[in-house]
Amino acid sequence: MRMVDIIISKRNGNELTDEEIAFFVNGYTKGEIPDYQVSALMMAIYFKGMSKRETLTLTKLMADSGDLLDLSKIAGIKVDKHSTGGVGDKTSLALTPIVSACGVPIAKMSGRGLGHTGGTIDKLESFDGFNVSIPTEQFIDNVNTNGISIMGQTADLAPADKKLYALRDVTGTVENMSLIASSIMSKKLAAGADAIVLDVKTGSGAFMKTLEDSTALAKEMVEIGNGAGRKTVAIISDMDQPLGLAVGNAIEVREAIDTLNGHGPEDFTELVYTLATYMIMLGGKASSEDEALTMIKEAVSSGKALDKLAAFIGSQGGNTEQVYHPELLKVSDKTVTVKAEKDGYVDHIVCDRVGVACMMLGGGRASKEDVIDLSVGIRLVKKVGDEVKKGDDLAIVYYSREEGLESALERLQSSYVISDVKPEKQPLIKNIIK
Amino acid sequence: MRMVDIIISKRNGNELTDEEIAFFVNGYTKGEIPDYQVSALMMAIYFKGMSKRETLTLTKLMADSGDLLDLSKIAGIKVDKHSTGGVGDKTSLALTPIVSACGVPIAKMSGRGLGHTGGTIDKLESFDGFNVSIPTEQFIDNVNTNGISIMGQTADLAPADKKLYALRDVTGTVENMSLIASSIMSKKLAAGADAIVLDVKTGSGAFMKTLEDSTALAKEMVEIGNGAGRKTVAIISDMDQPLGLAVGNAIEVREAIDTLNGHGPEDFTELVYTLATYMIMLGGKASSEDEALTMIKEAVSSGKALDKLAAFIGSQGGNTEQVYHPELLKVSDKTVTVKAEKDGYVDHIVCDRVGVACMMLGGGRASKEDVIDLSVGIRLVKKVGDEVKKGDDLAIVYYSREEGLESALERLQSSYVISDVKPEKQPLIKNIIK
Repeated sequence: MRMVDIIISKRNGNELTDEEIAFFVNGYTKGEIPDYQVSALMMAIYFKGMSKRETLTLTKLMADSGDLLDLSKIAGIKVDKHSTGGVGDKTSLALTPIVSACGVPIAKMSGRGLGHTGGTIDKLESFDGFNVSIPTEQFIDNVNTNGISIMGQTADLAPADKKLYALRDVTGTVENMSLIASSIMSKKLAAGADAIVLDVKTGSGAFMKTLEDSTALAKEMVEIGNGAGRKTVAIISDMDQPLGLAVGNAIEVREAIDTLNGHGPEDFTELVYTLATYMIMLGGKASSEDEALTMIKEAVSSGKALDKLAAFIGSQGGNTEQVYHPELLKVSDKTVTVKAEKDGYVDHIVCDRVGVACMMLGGGRASKEDVIDLSVGIRLVKKVGDEVKKGDDLAIVYYSREEGLESALERLQSSYVISDVKPEKQPLIKNIIK
Repeated sequence: MRMVDIIISKRNGNELTDEEIAFFVNGYTKGEIPDYQVSALMMAIYFKGMSKRETLTLTKLMADSGDLLDLSKIAGIKVDKHSTGGVGDKTSLALTPIVSACGVPIAKMSGRGLGHTGGTIDKLESFDGFNVSIPTEQFIDNVNTNGISIMGQTADLAPADKKLYALRDVTGTVENMSLIASSIMSKKLAAGADAIVLDVKTGSGAFMKTLEDSTALAKEMVEIGNGAGRKTVAIISDMDQPLGLAVGNAIEVREAIDTLNGHGPEDFTELVYTLATYMIMLGGKASSEDEALTMIKEAVSSGKALDKLAAFIGSQGGNTEQVYHPELLKVSDKTVTVKAEKDGYVDHIVCDRVGVACMMLGGGRASKEDVIDLSVGIRLVKKVGDEVKKGDDLAIVYYSREEGLESALERLQSSYVISDVKPEKQPLIKNIIK
């Protein structure tokens, strides 16, 4: 078998055999097949696509290219969750304690963030003493004891995907639905859960800008998950404005705790409850949406969900007092307010500008080596549809250094688009793919 | 400017600017842009093509990437010739002395062959003492003295093309008309001639199998040549059976000399005369096809063309006696004859099989390091359209070693397809693109 023949076959529009896909994935992972042949193949796939079988085979092979997390020592159906990412996305922080409180074990690996804010792991470090770098044995023990643990990605999950994604990133071959789906799902399969709920964002602040594209991606991922024997559901939700009101790190943790206390922002609460519903059903703890929703509301109102967060944070060395008193989480007390420059209604909030503003404050990483300032962030006072008068507060900026502040404020100001007409309310949940 | 943006732009179907093409050609030649980005771009070009302007810009940049042969010290219009290659293609050997005898200076660089037989340079080494590795100064002097010189490719012509072609060869990105045309023409532009005649083959033994593809390639090359200020004409001719009767090295030289003596095979003579006609017209020595043809016939019948070959061979140390007595050229005296296995007509002769048979005898190189046996070869006794009786000679094999002989004979036997019906005669010259 020769790699050039595989490239030509795909270029000519043929379906590759499982053997051909294995030849290139394994050869590339081992360094036996050079980058220049793989990038040519990726471009041929960009134009000619992959069938469901090809995509599933590629995904499984990439999942198998490194460590596979073994969760068999945890009783019950383990349900993982993945978000395609957006601005103000603190979903895991509120979602996982709720789901765990409803009896579904949470054994989750999370990554650090590159971009607007930190990732889940970064945000969790807002709790004093919290340790994300625990050995796998302790991780398993914690789930068995508390029903929940989240650890940093220590294992070498899907190294073939890592290598392939880095290549695609510099060769103009990222934007293919099958390759994107395969990349995401390979890591989820390697992470060992029995079932997966996908939080797929759509809109200007999402990787997929249109509902059509988001739905196509969601379908591909659900097919891969189910094809690999993991029950998978995707929830497609709006990311045309930031999620919730808080954008940052400690400030987002506070909002997640508010939500666990039952008074989170409406949109964020709706998303968390919807995702929790499907995680609980996939985890076999409820047989209908209504039943799951009742359980969720009970977990929140009884304080059980908050207690789960406290147990989780405490088991990994974190300060549980900050769970019950989120005002103890360090958010900078230096603030500036961005004000409306005219009367009207908030027509939309350009997500990316809000995100970049947060990164400029030091709240996110531009490159892997950057250190995040967990205390900075942005609180949106007004959201889409709100009426504003000239001079009203639009957003509050929590900053700790002058550097980048001016640019951040300008971005934030320009992210608010004020119109004379009240915009129609858009549903948050756009589609559910089972 | 970033290479990834150039890849994405082409992938999205845009025309690249001259600056973008220069960025990638120059960066790649210098080793600043990696293979994996260039192969992705080549695949994007495979799918999205290049405009005439893009193709011309690429070709000129590749031509300018290395040495440019300066022929300005040679008076007159220098006309170069390029063949896309086929089996039994000894055209340059007969063509260049005729054209030179008609007053057009020939200053030609030729390569060694990889494949069925040697290249022009290898074939010329059939003359005892002939030296292809002469300094450029002597090359220029020889043209000024004798009106003709052919040297081995010593200069670093179009290194960007060399690097790019090697990459395309292993990444499934050879088969794009613009890239093929650009590759050929970049070397021709660098070789310094004022005008170019292209000998484009079509049929089963050619790189382009269909007349449609051959015509498309010829048009692209003619457009590039004219666009770069070199008057260019392409002659498209049949390569559905080997050209002439001789396939090998010394044996092909003998056939070329026969043709210069006026008794070469009909098809080969027709091709040589047609190419010579256009070279003489582009060289400004005749103003019509008829005028040129009269000159050619006179050059042959008077012996001037043969004298030109002798002057050329002699000026580079070769034995001129072998020009006038081609039976002195070493052709092996060990022969085997392949005979017809049934009555009928030769329907076609599978070119590639004849070529591979010659290579198996030792007459061509499978890899660059191989040494060619110039004395071996094949003489076709029957050609397409000839009537045969069972037991008639089809071809004579001149061999020097037993190794590979059996396989060569089998290939040769199977290359002859005998049918009950006499096939319709096909014209040799299929099209002329000006």
